[in-house]
Amino acid sequence: MATVSAPQTPENDPRVKAVFDDIRQTRNTDFIGNIWRYLAFDPALLERTWQDVKAVMATESVLDAKTKEMIYVAVSTANACGYCVHSHTAAAKAQGMTDAEHAELIQIISLAARTNHILTGLQIPVDEQLQA
Amino acid sequence: MATVSAPQTPENDPRVKAVFDDIRQTRNTDFIGNIWRYLAFDPALLERTWQDVKAVMATESVLDAKTKEMIYVAVSTANACGYCVHSHTAAAKAQGMTDAEHAELIQIISLAARTNHILTGLQIPVDEQLQA
Amino acid sequence: MATVSAPQTPENDPRVKAVFDDIRQTRNTDFIGNIWRYLAFDPALLERTWQDVKAVMATESVLDAKTKEMIYVAVSTANACGYCVHSHTAAAKAQGMTDAEHAELIQIISLAARTNHILTGLQIPVDEQLQA
Amino acid sequence: MATVSAPQTPENDPRVKAVFDDIRQTRNTDFIGNIWRYLAFDPALLERTWQDVKAVMATESVLDAKTKEMIYVAVSTANACGYCVHSHTAAAKAQGMTDAEHAELIQIISLAARTNHILTGLQIPVDEQLQA
Amino acid sequence: MATVSAPQTPENDPRVKAVFDDIRQTRNTDFIGNIWRYLAFDPALLERTWQDVKAVMATESVLDAKTKEMIYVAVSTANACGYCVHSHTAAAKAQGMTDAEHAELIQIISLAARTNHILTGLQIPVDEQLQA
Amino acid sequence: MATVSAPQTPENDPRVKAVFDDIRQTRNTDFIGNIWRYLAFDPALLERTWQDVKAVMATESVLDAKTKEMIYVAVSTANACGYCVHSHTAAAKAQGMTDAEHAELIQIISLAARTNHILTGLQIPVDEQLQA
Repeated sequence: MATVSAPQTPENDPRVKAVFDDIRQTRNTDFIGNIWRYLAFDPALLERTWQDVKAVMATESVLDAKTKEMIYVAVSTANACGYCVHSHTAAAKAQGMTDAEHAELIQIISLAARTNHILTGLQIPVDEQLQA
Repeated sequence: MATVSAPQTPENDPRVKAVFDDIRQTRNTDFIGNIWRYLAFDPALLERTWQDVKAVMATESVLDAKTKEMIYVAVSTANACGYCVHSHTAAAKAQGMTDAEHAELIQIISLAARTNHILTGLQIPVDEQLQA
Repeated sequence: MATVSAPQTPENDPRVKAVFDDIRQTRNTDFIGNIWRYLAFDPALLERTWQDVKAVMATESVLDAKTKEMIYVAVSTANACGYCVHSHTAAAKAQGMTDAEHAELIQIISLAARTNHILTGLQIPVDEQLQA
Repeated sequence: MATVSAPQTPENDPRVKAVFDDIRQTRNTDFIGNIWRYLAFDPALLERTWQDVKAVMATESVLDAKTKEMIYVAVSTANACGYCVHSHTAAAKAQGMTDAEHAELIQIISLAARTNHILTGLQIPVDEQLQA
Repeated sequence: MATVSAPQTPENDPRVKAVFDDIRQTRNTDFIGNIWRYLAFDPALLERTWQDVKAVMATESVLDAKTKEMIYVAVSTANACGYCVHSHTAAAKAQGMTDAEHAELIQIISLAARTNHILTGLQIPVDEQLQA
Repeated sequence: MATVSAPQTPENDPRVKAVFDDIRQTRNTDFIGNIWRYLAFDPALLERTWQDVKAVMATESVLDAKTKEMIYVAVSTANACGYCVHSHTAAAKAQGMTDAEHAELIQIISLAARTNHILTGLQIPVDEQLQA
């Protein structure tokens, strides 16, 4: 299905095993998603991607974890990434996103898309007051 | 600059005036942005757009106003709408978004874009566990 | 401004001159837009692009010229191409698009964007009835 | 498959039933597509979405119904929404779109995408004549 | 699955047969992909599409065939076209793209997406030095 | 113009100075582009972005530097990032991209966009042969 093959025994490669171990420990789960299983075809790409995701999403920061996942869903929707919408909606729910919050997230995403297309479709210039 | 002309005296039209009055009252400001000034070329389009924005963004709801504006910025960035990025970043700041939160918002947006492209570029299938 | 330089005297090149002549004759105007002036940096790219545009947009076909230009505006908006929105909105107006039609075009574009993001944001599966 | 569950007996909720009844009556069909069945997870989101779609697409207006659906397909294609391409292509056909018109629609969409990328890829500036 | 039906015996149409013959000869294979089988619903669209693909991708030019296919994968990823990612990744591999090159391609695509979103998300102006 | 202010004396911050020094040394130039000047508003975001760009684009790898920049231009075009198109086209030219190669790059990008939209617009299914 993918354009690369997920290694059959990825953890035979110590670099892959180290990443998988870190995912399990960081997230406190045994579930290793397909993104990691397929990225194992290139350990360097796997390492860099996980380091990025961990640093931004799995580290204490000024935004709370639920908000971060909802922003992730918003971007993934606009970029039409089905896998990402699935995985980060699941993550947002795991962080406590309620059905009402989910519905509102979709409302905002779809409203933004609507006005994005109005502004671009009419080529309306940015107000000077917004450029300060 | 735009593909339509903003009416010179938009509030001569009572439907436009009603919308502008509602914007001023709802937002407690005299500033009427270009989006509304240009949409005044078609009062029905203006009314519908403002009703939508007001209902979703200017009404008490389960998400706080700052979070809503940050999600709006995220979608607008992925859809490459410069006007929208400007106006909703300004709105998020008006709702209290700090520089640190802004930087983190950009981090999440750009990380999401990165993994969006990895997943799509490799056509990695969605895990069954994520499809429940 | 562009990433290539528009030739100063493009029609010194006979291939460029032939295309410019054909544009003037086909459209019955002396106006040669920037797209053609810049594409003249590579006559083969200029020729192929004009042949495509002429064959699809300037040839009698099953759809009328105004509808064709409105569809062009719709795609260009979704792809965030400011130049294309400008040039094809102007072309649609030249083909008779009224302000009311323009407003409705923007309504449809922005509604479509809204539901596009709802469907993608929720990953709703296609109905079997729609797949026949 | 979706990230929300479609309610098993959606019409037990009177708000959902009212929307479904209106869809059946407006479209003169018993078919309720998945978009509505899944949106029923949040009646307010369902109501707003249907009101928007009905107001723009199922109401007499200056553009004919077939043209409106073809514009919808164009935007949905550029936004890569498979569900929307399916449902609005079916709607366009139901409104009389022929195979020849469908082929020409795809021609225009794909030509527009081609020149969209040329203009953006070269960053060609908008002609002053197009900005009046 | 598609929104048009692939003809059952496409080569009964001499225009379709001519294109299929040319594909087989140009690519030295018996494999005719779905893109061509479905486009056969409209011979003119089929002809024009194949002529374009052949002229750009199957003709000696200044870039080598592997590089061309990798660029194609990059665009197709950003445009979220699953079919195109599959077919042009396969073509790049057929032209010699190694797993290491594939991994690097994905690295560049995803890094570009990341900085694309940073620049757009902050609306950073283009340097004068880059506009010469 | 941007939504953040570029610090007036960015190199007073030792973290910013360290990044700027590394950019100058790595690229052997005194030119520090706006992306870095504006990202200096948040040193952590600046550091992470530069580390990523340096690791992928300024490090010896299996693809040559010119090819890497051309792939970057392709993605940036599809994502409609004007700044990125400018900066990476300039970088590709600095790495030796000729006008003929540039024209061919644009040809491939625009052809890919064309077939991307055909495949998505018709929802053509991926061949089984391409999914192995």
